[in-house]
Amino acid sequence: MQSIRPITITQQFTQHAEGSVLIQIGNTKVLCNASVLNRVPRFLQNGPKGWVTAEYSMLPRATHERTDREVMKGKPSGRTLEIQRLIGRTLRAAVDLSGIKDYSIHIDCDVIQADGGTRTAAITGGCIALYDALEWMVQHKKIKKNPFKGWIAATSVGMVQGEPKLDLDYQLDSQADVDMNIVMNEQGELIEIQGTAEQKPFEQNHLIEMLTLARQGIMEQLIPEQKSLYS
Amino acid sequence: MQSIRPITITQQFTQHAEGSVLIQIGNTKVLCNASVLNRVPRFLQNGPKGWVTAEYSMLPRATHERTDREVMKGKPSGRTLEIQRLIGRTLRAAVDLSGIKDYSIHIDCDVIQADGGTRTAAITGGCIALYDALEWMVQHKKIKKNPFKGWIAATSVGMVQGEPKLDLDYQLDSQADVDMNIVMNEQGELIEIQGTAEQKPFEQNHLIEMLTLARQGIMEQLIPEQKSLYS
Amino acid sequence: MQSIRPITITQQFTQHAEGSVLIQIGNTKVLCNASVLNRVPRFLQNGPKGWVTAEYSMLPRATHERTDREVMKGKPSGRTLEIQRLIGRTLRAAVDLSGIKDYSIHIDCDVIQADGGTRTAAITGGCIALYDALEWMVQHKKIKKNPFKGWIAATSVGMVQGEPKLDLDYQLDSQADVDMNIVMNEQGELIEIQGTAEQKPFEQNHLIEMLTLARQGIMEQLIPEQKSLYS
Amino acid sequence: MQSIRPITITQQFTQHAEGSVLIQIGNTKVLCNASVLNRVPRFLQNGPKGWVTAEYSMLPRATHERTDREVMKGKPSGRTLEIQRLIGRTLRAAVDLSGIKDYSIHIDCDVIQADGGTRTAAITGGCIALYDALEWMVQHKKIKKNPFKGWIAATSVGMVQGEPKLDLDYQLDSQADVDMNIVMNEQGELIEIQGTAEQKPFEQNHLIEMLTLARQGIMEQLIPEQKSLYS
Amino acid sequence: MQSIRPITITQQFTQHAEGSVLIQIGNTKVLCNASVLNRVPRFLQNGPKGWVTAEYSMLPRATHERTDREVMKGKPSGRTLEIQRLIGRTLRAAVDLSGIKDYSIHIDCDVIQADGGTRTAAITGGCIALYDALEWMVQHKKIKKNPFKGWIAATSVGMVQGEPKLDLDYQLDSQADVDMNIVMNEQGELIEIQGTAEQKPFEQNHLIEMLTLARQGIMEQLIPEQKSLYS
Amino acid sequence: MQSIRPITITQQFTQHAEGSVLIQIGNTKVLCNASVLNRVPRFLQNGPKGWVTAEYSMLPRATHERTDREVMKGKPSGRTLEIQRLIGRTLRAAVDLSGIKDYSIHIDCDVIQADGGTRTAAITGGCIALYDALEWMVQHKKIKKNPFKGWIAATSVGMVQGEPKLDLDYQLDSQADVDMNIVMNEQGELIEIQGTAEQKPFEQNHLIEMLTLARQGIMEQLIPEQKSLYS
Repeated sequence: MQSIRPITITQQFTQHAEGSVLIQIGNTKVLCNASVLNRVPRFLQNGPKGWVTAEYSMLPRATHERTDREVMKGKPSGRTLEIQRLIGRTLRAAVDLSGIKDYSIHIDCDVIQADGGTRTAAITGGCIALYDALEWMVQHKKIKKNPFKGWIAATSVGMVQGEPKLDLDYQLDSQADVDMNIVMNEQGELIEIQGTAEQKPFEQNHLIEMLTLARQGIMEQLIPEQKSLYS
Repeated sequence: MQSIRPITITQQFTQHAEGSVLIQIGNTKVLCNASVLNRVPRFLQNGPKGWVTAEYSMLPRATHERTDREVMKGKPSGRTLEIQRLIGRTLRAAVDLSGIKDYSIHIDCDVIQADGGTRTAAITGGCIALYDALEWMVQHKKIKKNPFKGWIAATSVGMVQGEPKLDLDYQLDSQADVDMNIVMNEQGELIEIQGTAEQKPFEQNHLIEMLTLARQGIMEQLIPEQKSLYS
Repeated sequence: MQSIRPITITQQFTQHAEGSVLIQIGNTKVLCNASVLNRVPRFLQNGPKGWVTAEYSMLPRATHERTDREVMKGKPSGRTLEIQRLIGRTLRAAVDLSGIKDYSIHIDCDVIQADGGTRTAAITGGCIALYDALEWMVQHKKIKKNPFKGWIAATSVGMVQGEPKLDLDYQLDSQADVDMNIVMNEQGELIEIQGTAEQKPFEQNHLIEMLTLARQGIMEQLIPEQKSLYS
Repeated sequence: MQSIRPITITQQFTQHAEGSVLIQIGNTKVLCNASVLNRVPRFLQNGPKGWVTAEYSMLPRATHERTDREVMKGKPSGRTLEIQRLIGRTLRAAVDLSGIKDYSIHIDCDVIQADGGTRTAAITGGCIALYDALEWMVQHKKIKKNPFKGWIAATSVGMVQGEPKLDLDYQLDSQADVDMNIVMNEQGELIEIQGTAEQKPFEQNHLIEMLTLARQGIMEQLIPEQKSLYS
Repeated sequence: MQSIRPITITQQFTQHAEGSVLIQIGNTKVLCNASVLNRVPRFLQNGPKGWVTAEYSMLPRATHERTDREVMKGKPSGRTLEIQRLIGRTLRAAVDLSGIKDYSIHIDCDVIQADGGTRTAAITGGCIALYDALEWMVQHKKIKKNPFKGWIAATSVGMVQGEPKLDLDYQLDSQADVDMNIVMNEQGELIEIQGTAEQKPFEQNHLIEMLTLARQGIMEQLIPEQKSLYS
Repeated sequence: MQSIRPITITQQFTQHAEGSVLIQIGNTKVLCNASVLNRVPRFLQNGPKGWVTAEYSMLPRATHERTDREVMKGKPSGRTLEIQRLIGRTLRAAVDLSGIKDYSIHIDCDVIQADGGTRTAAITGGCIALYDALEWMVQHKKIKKNPFKGWIAATSVGMVQGEPKLDLDYQLDSQADVDMNIVMNEQGELIEIQGTAEQKPFEQNHLIEMLTLARQGIMEQLIPEQKSLYS
């Protein structure tokens, strides 16, 4: 039976952020800092809802070869924007936004070391940082009750040499014919599914197999790991 | 039984492009121009393969409200980059890239009028422009045989008020709880699947229902429409 | 006797814009969309006047060779800025701006296919889109009466092999020693004149000959064509 | 009879440039530095011709009110690009470019103090800097003979309260109904003509009157002033 | 005994700026224009203090070889930002900012010709332009009394072939092992000290020697020169 | 007697970089990753020397309040550029660049948590990462012998309420009248000195006191700490 790589979660990794989580899955390490800001984006101003958003970045030497900083090119890459849109979108599904009226929670996901699955680690770790920030808001009387709707976690799955594989590291990922990212809530419902046939198209039964594998990793490992931090 | 909105395809819409297709699906109109360039990106130089890539843009008044040109902000938005990465990635699956060594085909998808499903129309129409450009290469002796691997088409599906719906227009799309884009080849295999629970999480059986609906629209309407242009 | 190339004008080419005109002159096709916005630039705020402005762009494959999108370079080129400043400036001469207080009309001119004279086609077509947008404002009770001051149209003239030529297409334009753009109102008065001796200086009598030719094309063909749409 | 405002020309104003001219016309002061560079733009590489180009900028406090530096906005304004394209284009008409094969001459026009007519002063002064740079090339054996084709100068004319006016200062310029810039060679032929009816359209006979006035200022004052520097 | 190169100061070099100083030290010429603006940066709004800031730029041909304009690269270089931060920071030390509440004074330092020491010349000349702008504010009843705290001037010193040298020109600067910029007030106190061992580290006794030399140049030449303008 | 805050150094903090050091001084934590690149900047190509350079960045929530990512503004701030120029310049003084011909070592300094002295911690930690990268080059046969010239370390000193203070944390720094950064080599010679009188000017004897304090911290704590890693 396949499983997620070893998971290590360190809360309060930095001292200033309202929620600060270093999540390590295999050799992938992502620092997820949640900041509570007393403002909302323009399109929500004077409305009944708050906001949750995310930014994603890799340190230049998180990877085998050094990659140039995006600030030096003047703009984030398409890949970066795509990933941070995904993280923000899925983490918003974990919160009743009307419960944080007038506030934004900004989740900064900075990859310290990369070995596959950085975006799914960012979602899984970011959800913990988000929860901690919401608890901070309750403790500091910003809100009366925590509007958290339940845990959300994510993993990658893929087809490698005709076999479905769970939680691809860099090496497996580069051999995969199909690469999927699956985000689920603690009821096992889908929040987001993204699958790309990088090498060859796949049939619906393979989709089902990969989904089953992802559900198993998320429901039996990632979400229990999140919950265990508070038990 | 649900169906794709009415489809109108005009080939050779402009005179300069090697492949030029105006595709209209419902009230969505996208101009897909394929350009054959005698060069490849740096990472493929001196290698055995050519390249297919795409760019996507909306004319400012394709939408109900005028949107500012991205050039005035100095960079494409995250949404634009995400969409054009999707179009390029899926159209590459339609071609044996070793058959266009030293060449790039650049698919420009410009949305003239938007009413939902612009990215899937761009893929469906772009695949025709791509085919025409490949034929042009054969006719102009750039390559010996057409390395086209088969038709690819795309549509959107979603859950609206608990029901799976095919080919969402703007109004349906704004009511949808789940929004999926499905790209398939002419064998009905998946090239790409992207599903987002914008409003509420969805279960696997709804995923299957939506996939079934998308397959039907793609296999019974879109791909036959593509093929009929050459019969 | 020389004449303007064949002219085809399609109104309501797209459905959202308050004025939408596809103008084709010879093989040059420009889509001119006029958008009515309920705001004015900062320097006119709280003042007695509204505003008319324009933006100009070429689709990447409007030309023989594909040109890169300007958004990818991060800014519009000098040529683009120069052309859109010209279009905006001359179309402002067609409207009593105090008649559209608190409103801006934004004319987007997107070149679908280029074969010389794209900026003059944009002015001629843009003036129709502008008129239609003003009519829309009257019909939708934004303003009481149409503040249109009269038709404005433009054409290019040049000296080719010592002879004055009217309405240069791409091929003639590339042979011209002198290249002029002339914008006139329906009284035959000059709104703008721009002449450049790209190859060799010209004398005042050639200037007069070119002006005469331009006046003839504008007064006998372009403006009657504009007027005929409403008769 | 009207005349150009008082003209003062200082050569070798700075020590490093191959041609360095401070031109003062009325209260307008422009520093024109010509640099000889041993390279050509990409589109001329390995070809038979050299190049002449120009850049234009205003010091922030050249004007009544301080204007922000364009570098702080990240790009030159449309006005700046339009002006420097004009200067470069007209100065190229003064040189046989095949006589400076493999070289570019870059004319930097920096406005120290502005009181109307900065672009025409830049052309008139830039032509002297250009000549001096060509002479420097001869003296330093970069070229055998000076490929200068003759003097070029420019002035502005306009219609103010129904009267044609020569060489508009800032105050006249802001009252003008029509604003024209005229560039001529020493034969009195036109190199460039740009006229804009900022306030009201103008008739052809006014165009002729303004041209006559400009010719007089250029032929009787500006070009003799240029020539007197070398007699 | 070493001394500062010959100093020439021209006040009211341009007509629009509230303070306008051309300072020439040796062959280095910097135009320092002070502009009085009736606004403050956001972080001082509604506070008790005004602001002094600076911008620095080199004309492209101030140097031996032409350098590209920074606006063409889209942003100021690190060197430019570092220098203008230094100039603004040190000139703020010359003014009691609470005496110019609601106003900013913007010092534009544009290098016309460079031969070493441009940043220190900008500080020395900028302080005069600042004083003149403050006097202008008094004369124009913007403020009751001049909040100037005293003269500030700057020079460079360095170690060249083991010897401390005062006021390095370009040639000396390029041979220096150590390069320091010293800013002092008229009491001989330090406002800023920046020393870099470009070639080899230096000992504290050399630091003292260089400081002594700089103090001498500042106290005996630069500040007396500033004061003499008003005696 | 004053001392540097507690120092913790973790080598090989990440797995990919040739040198990877997490340095913690008090509550300031900086990750310094050294990357060996087989190329040099253009101005050194085909020359006898290699290169050492640095980049500096703060994670958005390294600080009390979240700061926006610089990539979102399109360019690094002046402060960032100034700091990374300082780090690169001083670390170059630790290496005989002719000993790494054809190679660049790129030191990325990313501040994980900030509490004063981030730039000096980056220099002190970066020097260790640099040494480790040089050792890696020897072990991997890129170079024959390690061209390291000796340890370099840095600290901040300041005048707080009239007293010289060593190694300012954020709170002390915000009260300081004078703020200095001192970089020294293991002989106690100065590599760089930067002192700013943010609040009030200082006399030379205070400069000497601060230097003495900095020397003590660097020579008795920081450099011994660096050396102890290899003993």
